[in-house]
Amino acid sequence: MTINYPNGNDYSPNNKQSKKKSTINYGDRGMSLEQEINLSNAYYLNKGIAVIHKKPTPIQIVKVDYPKRSAAVIKEAYFKQASTTDYNGIFKEKYIDFDAKETTNKTSFPLNNFHQHQISHMQQCSKLGGICFSLIKFVKTNELFVLNGTDLFFYWERQYNDGRKSISKQELENSGYKLSYQINPLIPYLDAVDKIIDDNGGK
Amino acid sequence: MTINYPNGNDYSPNNKQSKKKSTINYGDRGMSLEQEINLSNAYYLNKGIAVIHKKPTPIQIVKVDYPKRSAAVIKEAYFKQASTTDYNGIFKEKYIDFDAKETTNKTSFPLNNFHQHQISHMQQCSKLGGICFSLIKFVKTNELFVLNGTDLFFYWERQYNDGRKSISKQELENSGYKLSYQINPLIPYLDAVDKIIDDNGGK
Repeated sequence: MTINYPNGNDYSPNNKQSKKKSTINYGDRGMSLEQEINLSNAYYLNKGIAVIHKKPTPIQIVKVDYPKRSAAVIKEAYFKQASTTDYNGIFKEKYIDFDAKETTNKTSFPLNNFHQHQISHMQQCSKLGGICFSLIKFVKTNELFVLNGTDLFFYWERQYNDGRKSISKQELENSGYKLSYQINPLIPYLDAVDKIIDDNGGK
Repeated sequence: MTINYPNGNDYSPNNKQSKKKSTINYGDRGMSLEQEINLSNAYYLNKGIAVIHKKPTPIQIVKVDYPKRSAAVIKEAYFKQASTTDYNGIFKEKYIDFDAKETTNKTSFPLNNFHQHQISHMQQCSKLGGICFSLIKFVKTNELFVLNGTDLFFYWERQYNDGRKSISKQELENSGYKLSYQINPLIPYLDAVDKIIDDNGGK
């Protein structure tokens, strides 16, 4: 028996629409990488898996008004350069510290997206037993990579040796952990952290 | 032989001045508790002992001007309530998370210095293996206490049972870790964290 929809279209459990569904790109929703990570962190927090927050943007406040009967208003302030990374928190008893970076490049990730103080901060945390990494997004292709701190530090130092100022996508595919967008969490980056913990021998 | 200073005063290695020195209160320098902790954190960072930073104050930015050839100026912004605690970082491979609170009270610490969301945040971090605590200062007497999260949660819950809205100083002396100001670090609060780790059986 052939079943049709009321509008006369064929019903088929394997029709084109359901095939399309399986290739939905959950990442392509006009959100910034920051919003995507915040959503993922909210999921992890809600499930009791991890407590990881974005640090607020550091601001130098110059002038504040205190109007009567209403909230204080900041009237003059400036953006300060952050001295650390954007995200930190705890997962599986471990201190987690990372930065999220986007590039519109197609084949490589430019190292000038990082600042020396961010690298130094991650190196200090790594020394004390923290898990540090960078979450890198190629926005043109919606590709995501987690690059472990030790590998990031290697590429960072390399630019001062042979002068290469970027990490090729091929290198990210070899040394990083590629992630796919999914529904919940949108960016399952703690899967990569699990692998980093495994690769460290559970430490 | 009697040695005198050029102005005729007696020299003595045990004179009053050197006795006075031993009772200098390093905490009584007109600094806020936040400044004192930041100084202590700078010391710990510099020595490679811990990486612990204060999170920036969260701000809701409403209006920003972008003048030509100069830095962006925030023209309207509001203070937001923080959803977490003030400080976090890593020490001895452990995730550290704490808040710093001052009171002008003399004999007890009022629990309304805390908000439910801060307590909830610390409870979530504790569950995942983080070390959470509160650093409490009695400003009139320059007394400092570290109160471990589990004890703080006990007193927090108690207010909903028998209605006591504060922690007495006696209770802090019994269940907390009393700290003394010193030169470096100004507030040696990681000594108390070491004891918390010991009391947890090294975990």
